[in-house]
Amino acid sequence: MQYRIEKDTMGEVQVPAEKYWGAQTERSRNNFKIGPEASMPKEIIYAFGYLKKAAAYANHELGVLSAEKRDLIAQVCEEIIAGKLDAEFPLVIWQTGSGTQSNMNVNEVVANRAHVLKGGSLLDEKKVLHPNDDVNKSQSSNDTFPTAMHIAAYTQVVNVTIPGMQKLRNTLASKAEEYMNVVKVGRTHFMDATPLTLGQEFSGYVQQIDNSIRALRNALEAVKELALGGTAVGTGLNTPKGYDVLVAAKIAEFTGLPFVTAPNKFESLAAHDAMVELSGALKRAAVSFMKIANDVRMLSSGPRSGIGEIIIPDNEPGSSIMPGKVNPTQPEALSMVCAQVIGNDVAVSVGGATGHFELNVFKPVIAANVLQSATLIGDACVSFNDKCAVGIEPNYDVIKKHLENSLMLVTALNPHIGYENAAKIAKKAHKENKTLREAAIELGLLTSEQFDEWVIPADMVGSLK
Amino acid sequence: MQYRIEKDTMGEVQVPAEKYWGAQTERSRNNFKIGPEASMPKEIIYAFGYLKKAAAYANHELGVLSAEKRDLIAQVCEEIIAGKLDAEFPLVIWQTGSGTQSNMNVNEVVANRAHVLKGGSLLDEKKVLHPNDDVNKSQSSNDTFPTAMHIAAYTQVVNVTIPGMQKLRNTLASKAEEYMNVVKVGRTHFMDATPLTLGQEFSGYVQQIDNSIRALRNALEAVKELALGGTAVGTGLNTPKGYDVLVAAKIAEFTGLPFVTAPNKFESLAAHDAMVELSGALKRAAVSFMKIANDVRMLSSGPRSGIGEIIIPDNEPGSSIMPGKVNPTQPEALSMVCAQVIGNDVAVSVGGATGHFELNVFKPVIAANVLQSATLIGDACVSFNDKCAVGIEPNYDVIKKHLENSLMLVTALNPHIGYENAAKIAKKAHKENKTLREAAIELGLLTSEQFDEWVIPADMVGSLK
Amino acid sequence: MQYRIEKDTMGEVQVPAEKYWGAQTERSRNNFKIGPEASMPKEIIYAFGYLKKAAAYANHELGVLSAEKRDLIAQVCEEIIAGKLDAEFPLVIWQTGSGTQSNMNVNEVVANRAHVLKGGSLLDEKKVLHPNDDVNKSQSSNDTFPTAMHIAAYTQVVNVTIPGMQKLRNTLASKAEEYMNVVKVGRTHFMDATPLTLGQEFSGYVQQIDNSIRALRNALEAVKELALGGTAVGTGLNTPKGYDVLVAAKIAEFTGLPFVTAPNKFESLAAHDAMVELSGALKRAAVSFMKIANDVRMLSSGPRSGIGEIIIPDNEPGSSIMPGKVNPTQPEALSMVCAQVIGNDVAVSVGGATGHFELNVFKPVIAANVLQSATLIGDACVSFNDKCAVGIEPNYDVIKKHLENSLMLVTALNPHIGYENAAKIAKKAHKENKTLREAAIELGLLTSEQFDEWVIPADMVGSLK
Amino acid sequence: MQYRIEKDTMGEVQVPAEKYWGAQTERSRNNFKIGPEASMPKEIIYAFGYLKKAAAYANHELGVLSAEKRDLIAQVCEEIIAGKLDAEFPLVIWQTGSGTQSNMNVNEVVANRAHVLKGGSLLDEKKVLHPNDDVNKSQSSNDTFPTAMHIAAYTQVVNVTIPGMQKLRNTLASKAEEYMNVVKVGRTHFMDATPLTLGQEFSGYVQQIDNSIRALRNALEAVKELALGGTAVGTGLNTPKGYDVLVAAKIAEFTGLPFVTAPNKFESLAAHDAMVELSGALKRAAVSFMKIANDVRMLSSGPRSGIGEIIIPDNEPGSSIMPGKVNPTQPEALSMVCAQVIGNDVAVSVGGATGHFELNVFKPVIAANVLQSATLIGDACVSFNDKCAVGIEPNYDVIKKHLENSLMLVTALNPHIGYENAAKIAKKAHKENKTLREAAIELGLLTSEQFDEWVIPADMVGSLK
Repeated sequence: MQYRIEKDTMGEVQVPAEKYWGAQTERSRNNFKIGPEASMPKEIIYAFGYLKKAAAYANHELGVLSAEKRDLIAQVCEEIIAGKLDAEFPLVIWQTGSGTQSNMNVNEVVANRAHVLKGGSLLDEKKVLHPNDDVNKSQSSNDTFPTAMHIAAYTQVVNVTIPGMQKLRNTLASKAEEYMNVVKVGRTHFMDATPLTLGQEFSGYVQQIDNSIRALRNALEAVKELALGGTAVGTGLNTPKGYDVLVAAKIAEFTGLPFVTAPNKFESLAAHDAMVELSGALKRAAVSFMKIANDVRMLSSGPRSGIGEIIIPDNEPGSSIMPGKVNPTQPEALSMVCAQVIGNDVAVSVGGATGHFELNVFKPVIAANVLQSATLIGDACVSFNDKCAVGIEPNYDVIKKHLENSLMLVTALNPHIGYENAAKIAKKAHKENKTLREAAIELGLLTSEQFDEWVIPADMVGSLK
Repeated sequence: MQYRIEKDTMGEVQVPAEKYWGAQTERSRNNFKIGPEASMPKEIIYAFGYLKKAAAYANHELGVLSAEKRDLIAQVCEEIIAGKLDAEFPLVIWQTGSGTQSNMNVNEVVANRAHVLKGGSLLDEKKVLHPNDDVNKSQSSNDTFPTAMHIAAYTQVVNVTIPGMQKLRNTLASKAEEYMNVVKVGRTHFMDATPLTLGQEFSGYVQQIDNSIRALRNALEAVKELALGGTAVGTGLNTPKGYDVLVAAKIAEFTGLPFVTAPNKFESLAAHDAMVELSGALKRAAVSFMKIANDVRMLSSGPRSGIGEIIIPDNEPGSSIMPGKVNPTQPEALSMVCAQVIGNDVAVSVGGATGHFELNVFKPVIAANVLQSATLIGDACVSFNDKCAVGIEPNYDVIKKHLENSLMLVTALNPHIGYENAAKIAKKAHKENKTLREAAIELGLLTSEQFDEWVIPADMVGSLK
Repeated sequence: MQYRIEKDTMGEVQVPAEKYWGAQTERSRNNFKIGPEASMPKEIIYAFGYLKKAAAYANHELGVLSAEKRDLIAQVCEEIIAGKLDAEFPLVIWQTGSGTQSNMNVNEVVANRAHVLKGGSLLDEKKVLHPNDDVNKSQSSNDTFPTAMHIAAYTQVVNVTIPGMQKLRNTLASKAEEYMNVVKVGRTHFMDATPLTLGQEFSGYVQQIDNSIRALRNALEAVKELALGGTAVGTGLNTPKGYDVLVAAKIAEFTGLPFVTAPNKFESLAAHDAMVELSGALKRAAVSFMKIANDVRMLSSGPRSGIGEIIIPDNEPGSSIMPGKVNPTQPEALSMVCAQVIGNDVAVSVGGATGHFELNVFKPVIAANVLQSATLIGDACVSFNDKCAVGIEPNYDVIKKHLENSLMLVTALNPHIGYENAAKIAKKAHKENKTLREAAIELGLLTSEQFDEWVIPADMVGSLK
Repeated sequence: MQYRIEKDTMGEVQVPAEKYWGAQTERSRNNFKIGPEASMPKEIIYAFGYLKKAAAYANHELGVLSAEKRDLIAQVCEEIIAGKLDAEFPLVIWQTGSGTQSNMNVNEVVANRAHVLKGGSLLDEKKVLHPNDDVNKSQSSNDTFPTAMHIAAYTQVVNVTIPGMQKLRNTLASKAEEYMNVVKVGRTHFMDATPLTLGQEFSGYVQQIDNSIRALRNALEAVKELALGGTAVGTGLNTPKGYDVLVAAKIAEFTGLPFVTAPNKFESLAAHDAMVELSGALKRAAVSFMKIANDVRMLSSGPRSGIGEIIIPDNEPGSSIMPGKVNPTQPEALSMVCAQVIGNDVAVSVGGATGHFELNVFKPVIAANVLQSATLIGDACVSFNDKCAVGIEPNYDVIKKHLENSLMLVTALNPHIGYENAAKIAKKAHKENKTLREAAIELGLLTSEQFDEWVIPADMVGSLK
């Protein structure tokens, strides 16, 4: 491989000749060979694209950066946002806990790429932009990295997580409506219970997702607050007056999302409670989806010796000797995602709880886990929706058989023959493995006609909505 | 011990003669000898007190319960709420996952106690109230227990957790204001950094607590929704029309808290996402307090070989040979509470994620963990506040010494002598273990007077608010 | 209430007149009003009983304590161990993270109780024993509290946890043997699969428990190492030569358990990895039991619309209108315990990870969680065993029906008619909701006699052991 | 892109023309677009390489596979193991919970690649090997995937995790020895305490790592047991006699690691307790390393206003205005890894606890988390070792200053002037901010010479080893 020499205050470093990154990125690359390369989430890099561009605009507007430099910075940032420079960001999550070298990675790439865009060579000693003095102007790693975390997390949640959840929610809501009159046996403690409708059962899932979306939106209120402008320790040292409010407005403008400057920058650097809160909301959604996924796989179990009250799409060949064996693979994938998100939340909590003084230095691990959780939930909802939920259908025969067999329909007789007599019927039916009707008639407590008149499961499910 | 005979549908049971509980409670007591007796949180029992009273009022108002029975039920419920019958609730958390026997425990105690209040004997076969038909009328364990969970959790959070947090928040806010001009060295990565004020540092803690309180209030929005009226599976079987709305209104009236009926009872029985969400908010607060507790103990460390920038109250004798050894015991207790709450949240998540079909059967473990977290955070905040935070004072000598020694004050020279020269001063000072002033003068870069004029830490901390 | 005055180096304190505890205990009681009183686990107190007695014996043997004082200390320690002085230990978990005041609580109670035993009065200024100089001789809170943690945890695991697990394991092993020939449908992905026997299924549970017990025993190897002799920071300052080895031997002698002195006292004070490891082993057991509990409740589900292949004992009245509704309450209690233990493990990990320098100050929260987990698992296993596992029986009719209906028995035909033809049979049976036999005969691929000869589920389950 | 048509029992699928994978892989690729492509850990793929080769050898030896087919399978497996076919495994973690399609991915790649190696074309309808009948012979996804999990996890732990830990352990052990006589102030509760040596402090870290390695080795005892031979549900249906023992021996031979067949295949498929246990051991190591990393960053804090008793290597430019600002980036990376591993353990526990009946279907998520934890700990130890631990040096000046200032040296005077007088000295020194010597002489309790003779910190640190 060809190398060129880059310098920083510690001296010279060999950098792959064709790469835009500089000395500090290369040092971090060599110092942290932990896990696979380039594990720092791309969403963070793109967020830095917005952030650096916004800073350049704010710096110009406040008179500390030329229009030419602003435009050069913005031009490279747009390339970054478009994913064109992905290969220039080789660093890992497991670096300094402030993410400093990832900030420098962006600074170096912007400066070097801008120089090349202006016709310069990477070998030129002097570049048109200085990574620190220009690209990082009015910034510190300590306020840029948390800002990038918030931009990335907010964006991922509103672009991936919530739309995925909403899509699945809508499908389940339409299933709830469609099957609102399909009366079936209820189950509590995994045991047969009084009836409800399949639509009612699904309406519970819809409510769970609605509530989870609400919780995510609540959490986003803190995530939309940006640390930028706090610089090194939250005091805003070396920023022009009004910079924090303006740069947040620029970020809001460029992203189209409602970012604002954080009311207290000391908190924004020293704690990542907003990310912890967001992770908690994602975990809450995971808990909801674990329930939904488990219900779907259990309801579709069988085909002969399970519960089998719904049919889900058959997406992959089951074993050729077991036709009808539809493995509930989408619920499985979704539930694995949920397990991951529950675990990620603990990693985020540990990282969030271990900040000290003016800086929390678990930033990359917090960011990576929140972003993974946000992505996985969104993607898994779409997958579960498209490949499973949309195709869910009642297995009417099984539903009917289970309902008819259900001993707890006897409840409907209470007003007519009294609780004691109803209990006798149920006990006899259970003990002798008979139907309620058979038991009732054998006991001489009512006629077949009366049974038909009084035992109407559809009347036992309350109001349908 | 003396016993009397109680009966249920499975037959006779020996119950301690003087106890108000009945057969089902006794069965559960014998069937679940897991951990210490009577571990079911008392807050749940008191919540049942409100609930049963409210149900009696609603049932009466809807024409299905006599005024006499309503009043009898209410009378015993008031005794329960007042803590007079605590000894009548011997059951443990680790029972059926629906909490059914704790519901029955309440039903039995209300019925038996009412009978005695009316002059009857526990040995009478027939009592003035029937535990199921009267006390439990229009109810099921499946909707009462989750309702009790919500009443108990909401109450504990607004009565204990938030007031405790608010108290500590206010103390820290007044400290922040009081010390807003005490300039001190900042620390990032545990390393010396540019200065800020002690008040600014504390303002970050205030923001953390404010945000945690906001998160708790958001979570309470779901907790205020009550399952009552859903009965066995959410359909509301065997409830009079309008009951769910009315009974929630009665609970709101009796507790003075804004409870409402849940919009979807299927969700309320089958999932405990609201409790999971509340637990997540409590965990978020724990993460905040872990940071604050750690900062306080580290800032007060020493007395000679630590950071020692603040002085905290001396509450217990340190070792008699080490006067001045103030162990930061309140921060330690608070941080242990935080570890517990972070763990409790995982228990709640696992329980919340493992519900099936129409009923989540991890209700007691979810309730117990949320209530413990809510209590511990509230209590620990009050303890930390009263015994530590109110007495925090700056150690001005140490703060001054650290600030004066700090190499990063050199930043202030950048505009006057340039970055390169400033760096030379800092490097020389560090290498030769000198003050910046000494290094600057030795290098001939500025005069002592200039140093005094330019290096003013108080000008480096931004606007104070 | 009556008070007497007690003194320590900070001055006078009012203590309830009749209580044996002294000034330091009372200060802690007043300083830490967090959660319910006296939450410090009693097992820790009893462990201190063994420890203080052993220290007295070692101190005497090494010539630094008189025989008279040794015997007095031992006498009170035996009262403590016997539970006679439980009411003298009012402190909470949420105190100083070193547990110092709980150590002092023991020292004070031993000194004061000894004085009374010798005929003295609590009001005497001078007592026969000094809490620090005599009872705490050659000790520090920093090495006694971790020693008490290890004694308590080891004891609880070998006396409660493992015997409980072993009891359940033996029941399941006898069930596995008893039902080794009961062929039933297998289930993978919750879907019907090739057959196995009920005994084979249960043998998996037995293996899980055996492995969990092995993991616990491995973890105990580190727990048996005691910190005692390290005193304040691990150096053993102020202990006579040979003390650490001797005092561990005394503890081993008095408890009958194989305790030894820790090879490195710095580790023993500064980290609680041994407790973290033990918590991890308890968590591993919880994971095993969650699987077993879930299988049992799902296998017993029904009675009409579930899986219903086993019958479990009916311990509490199901709803009187649903005879046969046996709620699987024991599996529910066990699975709630498992959720708690999984959460406790996180609390322990957070506490364990947050030690600094020479002392981990999350000792009480670590101890309390490990002890709760150990107790709950042991108790829940006994409860699940006695009230559920011993009574498990196959539901032969359902097992037979499920097995006969199972489409995957077609596998047995592969060697005779080829995979392609077998698949045709299975597909037809599934599609037309027929038996394999019917489908096979209708397709003309074999005779009824051939079907009976070839399709023998009992031949598909491998060797039985 | 060019496509070819592949078929399975569900029909035709378009597959990228040049790829070796077949229809089932392609279906899974399309059905599970969750998170980044190809996230299934490569270690699992390589483990499948060993497994498929071993199965081919065992099948041949037991007479059910020709030598020619065995050799063809083995040839492709060696390419897989060598990483030459990495691009042929595009599937994600978030697929079916049995990992079935990843097993099929291997089967298809082996069959198609073998066909090409033999000179065939991917377009040929009939291949020299059949993915199911040959490559998957005597196997099921249900026993191969858990086997691959164990092979991969065992290998990663013995090749990456333990060697990394051992390397760091050895460095710390040599530092412990080197600095065994460097007496310094101890710290408990973050407060000054009696002295110990820097070597003693480090010896605690060594003990922590030794214990963590022991815990890992214990956990590996269960991981070395392989499920292979259990096939679909653990009964070993469709395997030749003796296959399970033989195929494990082959895997042991090919990997050089001590794999054996599992004693109970029902447990091996239905539970992943061995992986849960291994994850727990990795988490225990994470807890140890969190403590060590925190100590190192705190001990090196400063340079002027921290604890500053050790100097760690300067790997990246600190801010150019703050020379001497060595950010403890390696401890930060290590502690972030620890947070991740603690979180991963929860994901693994949730997955492990949620298996049902004959198959746990959280296999991929369990595997991915355990492998990530194993890799990160190993890599981070090497990084921390090479870039930080090897360069740790005492800051003798600071150590000396802290030690001399320490008030708790007064303990050494107890035997000479009595505890009361010693306490007077310490109190006076603390109150008047003097040295112990000054206070002692001013109080007239001893002479300067006596102070020098009696107060010798090196005598307070116990035996050094």
